[in-house]
Amino acid sequence: MAPIPHLMTLADLSPVQIRRLVAHAHHLKQVTVPWLQPQGTLAPKAASKLRLPSQSLFNKTIALLFSKRSTRTRVAAETSASLLGGRALFLGREDIQLGVNETPRDTARVIGGMCQGIFARVNDHSEIEELAKYSPVPVLNALSSLWHPTQVLADLLTLHEHANLFVTSSPGKTKRTSQSPNFPELRPLTIAYVGDSANVLHDMLVTYPRLGHQLRVASPEDKKYRAPPEVWRRVEELGCDQRIWWGSDPRQAVTGADVVVTDTWISMGQEAEKEERLKAFSGYQVTEELCREGGANPDWKFLHCLPRKQDEVNDEVFYGPRSLAFPEADNRKWTIMAIFDLLFGKWDLTEKLALSRGKGDE
Amino acid sequence: MAPIPHLMTLADLSPVQIRRLVAHAHHLKQVTVPWLQPQGTLAPKAASKLRLPSQSLFNKTIALLFSKRSTRTRVAAETSASLLGGRALFLGREDIQLGVNETPRDTARVIGGMCQGIFARVNDHSEIEELAKYSPVPVLNALSSLWHPTQVLADLLTLHEHANLFVTSSPGKTKRTSQSPNFPELRPLTIAYVGDSANVLHDMLVTYPRLGHQLRVASPEDKKYRAPPEVWRRVEELGCDQRIWWGSDPRQAVTGADVVVTDTWISMGQEAEKEERLKAFSGYQVTEELCREGGANPDWKFLHCLPRKQDEVNDEVFYGPRSLAFPEADNRKWTIMAIFDLLFGKWDLTEKLALSRGKGDE
Amino acid sequence: MAPIPHLMTLADLSPVQIRRLVAHAHHLKQVTVPWLQPQGTLAPKAASKLRLPSQSLFNKTIALLFSKRSTRTRVAAETSASLLGGRALFLGREDIQLGVNETPRDTARVIGGMCQGIFARVNDHSEIEELAKYSPVPVLNALSSLWHPTQVLADLLTLHEHANLFVTSSPGKTKRTSQSPNFPELRPLTIAYVGDSANVLHDMLVTYPRLGHQLRVASPEDKKYRAPPEVWRRVEELGCDQRIWWGSDPRQAVTGADVVVTDTWISMGQEAEKEERLKAFSGYQVTEELCREGGANPDWKFLHCLPRKQDEVNDEVFYGPRSLAFPEADNRKWTIMAIFDLLFGKWDLTEKLALSRGKGDE
Repeated sequence: MAPIPHLMTLADLSPVQIRRLVAHAHHLKQVTVPWLQPQGTLAPKAASKLRLPSQSLFNKTIALLFSKRSTRTRVAAETSASLLGGRALFLGREDIQLGVNETPRDTARVIGGMCQGIFARVNDHSEIEELAKYSPVPVLNALSSLWHPTQVLADLLTLHEHANLFVTSSPGKTKRTSQSPNFPELRPLTIAYVGDSANVLHDMLVTYPRLGHQLRVASPEDKKYRAPPEVWRRVEELGCDQRIWWGSDPRQAVTGADVVVTDTWISMGQEAEKEERLKAFSGYQVTEELCREGGANPDWKFLHCLPRKQDEVNDEVFYGPRSLAFPEADNRKWTIMAIFDLLFGKWDLTEKLALSRGKGDE
Repeated sequence: MAPIPHLMTLADLSPVQIRRLVAHAHHLKQVTVPWLQPQGTLAPKAASKLRLPSQSLFNKTIALLFSKRSTRTRVAAETSASLLGGRALFLGREDIQLGVNETPRDTARVIGGMCQGIFARVNDHSEIEELAKYSPVPVLNALSSLWHPTQVLADLLTLHEHANLFVTSSPGKTKRTSQSPNFPELRPLTIAYVGDSANVLHDMLVTYPRLGHQLRVASPEDKKYRAPPEVWRRVEELGCDQRIWWGSDPRQAVTGADVVVTDTWISMGQEAEKEERLKAFSGYQVTEELCREGGANPDWKFLHCLPRKQDEVNDEVFYGPRSLAFPEADNRKWTIMAIFDLLFGKWDLTEKLALSRGKGDE
Repeated sequence: MAPIPHLMTLADLSPVQIRRLVAHAHHLKQVTVPWLQPQGTLAPKAASKLRLPSQSLFNKTIALLFSKRSTRTRVAAETSASLLGGRALFLGREDIQLGVNETPRDTARVIGGMCQGIFARVNDHSEIEELAKYSPVPVLNALSSLWHPTQVLADLLTLHEHANLFVTSSPGKTKRTSQSPNFPELRPLTIAYVGDSANVLHDMLVTYPRLGHQLRVASPEDKKYRAPPEVWRRVEELGCDQRIWWGSDPRQAVTGADVVVTDTWISMGQEAEKEERLKAFSGYQVTEELCREGGANPDWKFLHCLPRKQDEVNDEVFYGPRSLAFPEADNRKWTIMAIFDLLFGKWDLTEKLALSRGKGDE
């Protein structure tokens, strides 16, 4: 048997592996969306062409070990597992013995002995490392104190799908290669992140630069709002720091930005620091004015991983035509479906040719 | 794409649409019950005739957004979704961000983007209206402060199934029409409701009179025990008030009744008013004596949506041969299965011919 | 229709019925494990021989009524139901009306009317008796104050699977009979239980002696640590007391033991008595030294139903080569799958020939 593949952060994958995951998500979305239409509304010809997506989780069960509240990640996982023929089994803090009556080591071994994968949302990142150490099946990080790999996969799929929205100085770059005929290519972008340095940003830091994009970050100067040493070490090891600019002025960060990204400053569990944080992030709200003054690309688009508060972005931007936040939320599903298929269903995250072609599904 | 169908109350449907839903539930029950027998116990001939019910939710997911505790509605939804090939995903107060970290608008858009329907049990009715406004998929009311449409569909199916129990002055009325060969017709009944004016009664008020039945209601005189203006407006718009008698004497209400219905007086969240309510409903307990004294049809039958307390009905009636309360509970499943199939699976609540006939399922 | 089969304790079954359940679990495991391998990793020849396990729960739903926290039993039930084609529906204390707004009688009738089986974990044993009395479908005990039948089925499967580990004085006894060609036979063992007299031990007391094994128990002298009269009555009725030795010295208990079993002394809900219990069980920790001094069979193996604390067994034993605790945990799944199949799917716990043979799955 091959070694058990786990995924803690996109830093663990090569650019080709990341691209394969995103292109596979795009493929699964194209195959599956027609299945989800109301029955009887597809034209007979279209209906006759329906084919099932991968059923690599047929009758299998993926355990969701979630010690934090979740909407998107959970619903994406539950619906994806069903589409792959299997089942997601949600186990929250109240449900099991983990951390109450039993060590992570024993829980990992027992649940991994009955389920075909573990998708875990933990508090401290060390907890998921412990699960991965003792689980006999793959463990996937659904969010930890350090990393949030599945969010950045969804962001990437969203950018690729909207590749034609980004005005390009070198026309023709938004092409479809012969290797992946339906997967839209993306020109190198300038991506600005305005806000707290948290798990979503950390996975952006180790990912976007390796895919050819520039990253510009603004966060308050206090060390607590900057990436911790263990993240920065991975950034440097991968040579990503060459394409990262980091300052504390949001206007400077959005200069030339094709995409502006933010996240809440007051995450679950940080309610106590609310006042201090509102002060530290004063002036960080993403607005039309901020981006105009900072000199963003006039066609800039907006991403947000949700849930959203007004503090970090106003209604005009969030519900306006620049916002890709809801397509981005939808894509949590397709990217999680892709990684469930390859990681849990097939134990295969290799650099294999990214795209399925021809008539059979993969 | 057709506009998204939602269902908030049976007042939104025509009598033909309501009839179609109930007859479809009856059909699904007949097709499905044999599937649920212990394996190996069906005679080979019967087994060879088994055919699957509609699989319109195949690999699809219906979100159950429940902010209140539930037994019947939830189990009916979970089992129905499975029988239609799909999955119900229960999301309670503790599970998601709704109302904690996120607006109903954003939650509706996100969950509706990943699931193929939303079945919501809310507190204030305005909450479900808000969900329906922003959801990209159908929203079905699983109980709100104002309405409880799925309960009254189950009551209707139960009455049709037991049509032969109601002695009729015009024999032959309990017939099966050629249009719906297996669906028992129901003669016009006198239906008495004794108790608090709550969501179940509200849907009775806008439904039974339009189907030809007389409704007699007894509730205490205080305005808080009478239907609120927004319900009464719908009653009058539909002309239902012509067949409704409303007073405060339970004996008068049951006069001539073929069916006596009640519900708990102390719903979830009303425990604080317990003493006041016990006093207001003194004398309202449904008993043999009350119905004899009031002059109910000697063959009167009893309905209760459950959970039941002794306050509103004594054991003799509740566990006796008049009680249809448990078949009524069973029918929560088949009526919810019917509406899941037509609303979520097919987006089709039209006045189409009510019954499936012939060999194929629909 | 045959009477509804329920299962409260293995005392309700004959030795042949118990053997049939364990052998069926072994069979289901052999059939199903290849299905659960990562897709694409089976050799084509092996893949072509895959056949589905029994699908007797196809589109059916089994209600899990759990009033206590659970990891193993729950995950085993959820994954088993999926493998049999159905669904387990977990309903915890927070989910339903049971015991809050509704009597066990009404809940049993309603949930049993919508689901095809009830798997219940209760506090007082009388609660599950009440559920069984009123449920229209089979009720299976998932743990009560008195009994824990599914745990002992898993222990039995584990012992059979490891039959070759037990040195035998009469070689050839670990054979495969012609009746059950793949099911390893087990020689008569001496099984020692060191710890509190709780539900797991109670099902051991009424089971192992009838299968030919000797049982040696050590528990503190205080009556509270000894099996209650209603358990002891069943033990005597079945004649099991002939093969049970009971004392208070752990060293004496393990004398000649092939298998040493323990369980936590401080179960859920007993945290208040912690200090008293630590004192009462002083000297009861299972260690190499204890078993050497007591004169256990040098090849003794270790079982524990989990979750485990250090108090009752040290790391050397628990994580060492003698420990079968994790295979035992894995077998919770296969034994629960077997009983779900026969009890809920087929209503057939008869003494039928234990093994499926030939090409079709049963």
